[in-house]
Amino acid sequence: MQAVLGIAGQSPSGLEGAIQAWRDALGSEFVVTGRAELEAAQTTTFRTEQRVPAILRPANRQQVQDCVAIANRFRVPIYPVSTGLNWGYGSRVPDTDGCAVVELIRMNRIVDFSEELAYVTVEPGVTQAQLFRFLQERKSRLWMDATGGSPESSLIGNTVERGFGHTPYGDHFANSCAYEVVLPNGDFLETGFARFGNAQAAESYRWGMGPVLDGLFTQSNLGIVTRMTIWLMPAPEHFQAFYFRVDDDEALAGVVNALRPLRMDGTLRSAMHIANDYKIMASMRSYPYDVTGGATPLMPEVMKTFRKELSCGAWNGSGALYGTRRQVAEARRLVKRALRGKINKIQFLDDFMLRVAGRFAKPLGALTGWDLSGALELVRPVYGLTKGIPTTHSLKSCYWRHRSVPANLNLDAGDCGLFWCAPVTPAEGGHTKAVARIAYDVVLAGGFEPMLSITLLTERSASCVISLAYDRRIPGEDDKAEACYKRLLRMLAEHGYYSYRLGVQGMEQMNGGGGYNRFLRELKATVDPNCILSPGRYNP
Amino acid sequence: MQAVLGIAGQSPSGLEGAIQAWRDALGSEFVVTGRAELEAAQTTTFRTEQRVPAILRPANRQQVQDCVAIANRFRVPIYPVSTGLNWGYGSRVPDTDGCAVVELIRMNRIVDFSEELAYVTVEPGVTQAQLFRFLQERKSRLWMDATGGSPESSLIGNTVERGFGHTPYGDHFANSCAYEVVLPNGDFLETGFARFGNAQAAESYRWGMGPVLDGLFTQSNLGIVTRMTIWLMPAPEHFQAFYFRVDDDEALAGVVNALRPLRMDGTLRSAMHIANDYKIMASMRSYPYDVTGGATPLMPEVMKTFRKELSCGAWNGSGALYGTRRQVAEARRLVKRALRGKINKIQFLDDFMLRVAGRFAKPLGALTGWDLSGALELVRPVYGLTKGIPTTHSLKSCYWRHRSVPANLNLDAGDCGLFWCAPVTPAEGGHTKAVARIAYDVVLAGGFEPMLSITLLTERSASCVISLAYDRRIPGEDDKAEACYKRLLRMLAEHGYYSYRLGVQGMEQMNGGGGYNRFLRELKATVDPNCILSPGRYNP
Repeated sequence: MQAVLGIAGQSPSGLEGAIQAWRDALGSEFVVTGRAELEAAQTTTFRTEQRVPAILRPANRQQVQDCVAIANRFRVPIYPVSTGLNWGYGSRVPDTDGCAVVELIRMNRIVDFSEELAYVTVEPGVTQAQLFRFLQERKSRLWMDATGGSPESSLIGNTVERGFGHTPYGDHFANSCAYEVVLPNGDFLETGFARFGNAQAAESYRWGMGPVLDGLFTQSNLGIVTRMTIWLMPAPEHFQAFYFRVDDDEALAGVVNALRPLRMDGTLRSAMHIANDYKIMASMRSYPYDVTGGATPLMPEVMKTFRKELSCGAWNGSGALYGTRRQVAEARRLVKRALRGKINKIQFLDDFMLRVAGRFAKPLGALTGWDLSGALELVRPVYGLTKGIPTTHSLKSCYWRHRSVPANLNLDAGDCGLFWCAPVTPAEGGHTKAVARIAYDVVLAGGFEPMLSITLLTERSASCVISLAYDRRIPGEDDKAEACYKRLLRMLAEHGYYSYRLGVQGMEQMNGGGGYNRFLRELKATVDPNCILSPGRYNP
Repeated sequence: MQAVLGIAGQSPSGLEGAIQAWRDALGSEFVVTGRAELEAAQTTTFRTEQRVPAILRPANRQQVQDCVAIANRFRVPIYPVSTGLNWGYGSRVPDTDGCAVVELIRMNRIVDFSEELAYVTVEPGVTQAQLFRFLQERKSRLWMDATGGSPESSLIGNTVERGFGHTPYGDHFANSCAYEVVLPNGDFLETGFARFGNAQAAESYRWGMGPVLDGLFTQSNLGIVTRMTIWLMPAPEHFQAFYFRVDDDEALAGVVNALRPLRMDGTLRSAMHIANDYKIMASMRSYPYDVTGGATPLMPEVMKTFRKELSCGAWNGSGALYGTRRQVAEARRLVKRALRGKINKIQFLDDFMLRVAGRFAKPLGALTGWDLSGALELVRPVYGLTKGIPTTHSLKSCYWRHRSVPANLNLDAGDCGLFWCAPVTPAEGGHTKAVARIAYDVVLAGGFEPMLSITLLTERSASCVISLAYDRRIPGEDDKAEACYKRLLRMLAEHGYYSYRLGVQGMEQMNGGGGYNRFLRELKATVDPNCILSPGRYNP
């Protein structure tokens, strides 16, 4: 592929020249070539072979343009990341060998904010935690949306990968606009009305005038997004989360079908999540090696025996209601009505109850019939996520197969094995069930546990995030997990279930789209004739 | 420009050759060159000079590809329209001279439909009226969204121009996916997951995998959309429309600021419309030449004297509430609370009340204090629009300056003068007021009436559609109206208010976007090296 991509001519002196030029442009300290740092950049949560010759840390858009110009001059490809915490999908590791990683962490300014129109304009280095603090400090009445990923991950990074969170603003791409993009030819552009210097509605109206380009720069190697406006949500007058449990393994389809109409009619304004027992267990404790006598995987019949201890069901839903007290009360009535007879237990929770529960977990458990004390540790961070509060909690489940969880949750440290696979289905129970079945079959046969989290992502679609967590220190596990992941991706595609997002480990699935792929290749050749930007990424 | 666009070499024999080749490909009857039909295609609601040498009517995607291939071979540009009823923006008239118009009216199949997942997949010839009939015939519980434009206008045509309607699915582009697009090089592609032949979620999940291309083919000359999936809305359990009146000319800003939070928090799920008195009057009756002694324009102080007769205020709002009975009741409470002290009269209306009102307009008027009999004629079609029912009603206002409205509402017949200008503002009262002031100043000074309809289009943006209606039969009026429109567009841009959509009459406003425009030109040169597709359209 490299010859095709036009970097066959790259010589050591090409790379050396580029590094010197980057040093001149950015300052030496911001061009990293130390062995330890490069090895860290080459390390993700699964085995990769790609080597990284340098890490560049530009400070502003002009310096990003300089990096691009130098990459073109010396024909050395670059791979931009925001903060690079793209865990489960390849972190900072480029899709192809020999790319200098461009880290945008120094571009971490919040450049605009409107309380009234509820938006914030950020650079790629701005993290979830940073925006959360910013809003707290201003005593803003606005909520951000947060993913279950690291609080230190980039807002722009997640948005350009089209990630999603847990509030009504959970579809990040759908709630962003006014991108500033550096093109692989060194030029830059602004999307929407933002291109007109005096535009009043650049941050509030998304489509602008003329062709809408935003989508072109998401899941893409056509440009580097260096600024973006992100919409925020006014805090509702009242908020209530809810959690339900389904004991029957076969009941998933009915639950999805019962919830879809509520998603469609606006009663459920945010993405609902439904996790299976494996996913719950992994977020609460580590693998029960003692029970299995060290054997893996944890088979479903053994998994079942843990449900009581974990206060969880075969399927475990979580969602939230936003509005006035009456709106929330009515939504609550409708959710209960829709789920009646389809679930075993539903529990609503708000700030007041959570405070009480923290103090009187056991008495409240006696009162409500549901033991909150066991679930509280799990519930609190999930509850926070539905209010847009970032948390490290979900990351613990990645160490499920480890005997202990490190204090520093850096998944790229080398021990943590993790693949994420996220097929999309229509929000229809038969499809959800079909994907779950494939996941169970393939993942268990591959020697791992099928941890599933099904998200009712939009009014009519669902995404099933399948986590494959393992211990990289065990010889052979990298091979086994990779084979399992590839088989999973292939089997899902054979049944028509494609992922909403790909990692470096599955990029070949982009192929096969006929005219779409031909168009994309033409586009790439036009805007990036030397193919210096993220070769192979979402455009193999 | 033509030389740049590569059609300088077009000779009469080029055109003749193309027409012959198109006849061979489509059949002679579908290549129209008759003088009367060509003249009709060259006629819109304002003066244009562009000539149309032929009209092509392909029957399917393959024939569209054939049309494109022949256009390339003979270097004759083509200008695709769906049904071509792009009134106020240029109808079927191409942006540049000498384009054959490709009408997609024969591609009028509804090719897929799902009651469960609430979508329909259509070809460009499918009209608003056709989809409405389709849903009625099936006794579907789904509602479509409709614009105030002609019921015979194309769903795809409106969506690719990013038009909007009146229900929660009013942002048409935001509620569409899975485009099939013929490219100017003769290839075709599918967007989203649709490119994978077996994809299950192609119609229900919009973004697919990899770069999102949909936006590239809206307001664009980069491709011809030949198929699209459009999402539909499940009919709510209960529906209630509401109308309010504001007598104080200066009260607009306060009303917009009061409504924005309700739009943002999901209480108002659909676009609210606020029309001024001119807009109301034009939709109810023709110009009062008798009162003005034949003089035009109708000055604001005279306009005011009509408000009582028309039962209208300076500003007149209309919106609707969708949900269960309790959701609607709570929304109603919130709307009333937000508008308290800011408006003079609010009236809620549902199916039951409308039936009663029809029979007992006067007694009900006595009861409610609002004379419905006068307003009923106006209200019924507006009420229908908020339920997605197409209507010809709004079109009558285009004949405001005529002494009579023709039975056949073909605005392209040559008499009807109409310009539409649609600047976008943040949904903030100061901005809305600023745009209204510019519109009043410029339009009245230009000799016309400022008919305004302000739409709270999204959670944080508003669009102000300014209609400029005149009688083309009066000598000099074409000149006067064009000058007025151009001044309006320029003044709005000077203040930072850009249009959500452009017509052939204002396409030069696309310029001035720096990198955006350079990128677009590069893209165009790549996918359309001979510039055969809609030269100059959204890419001057």
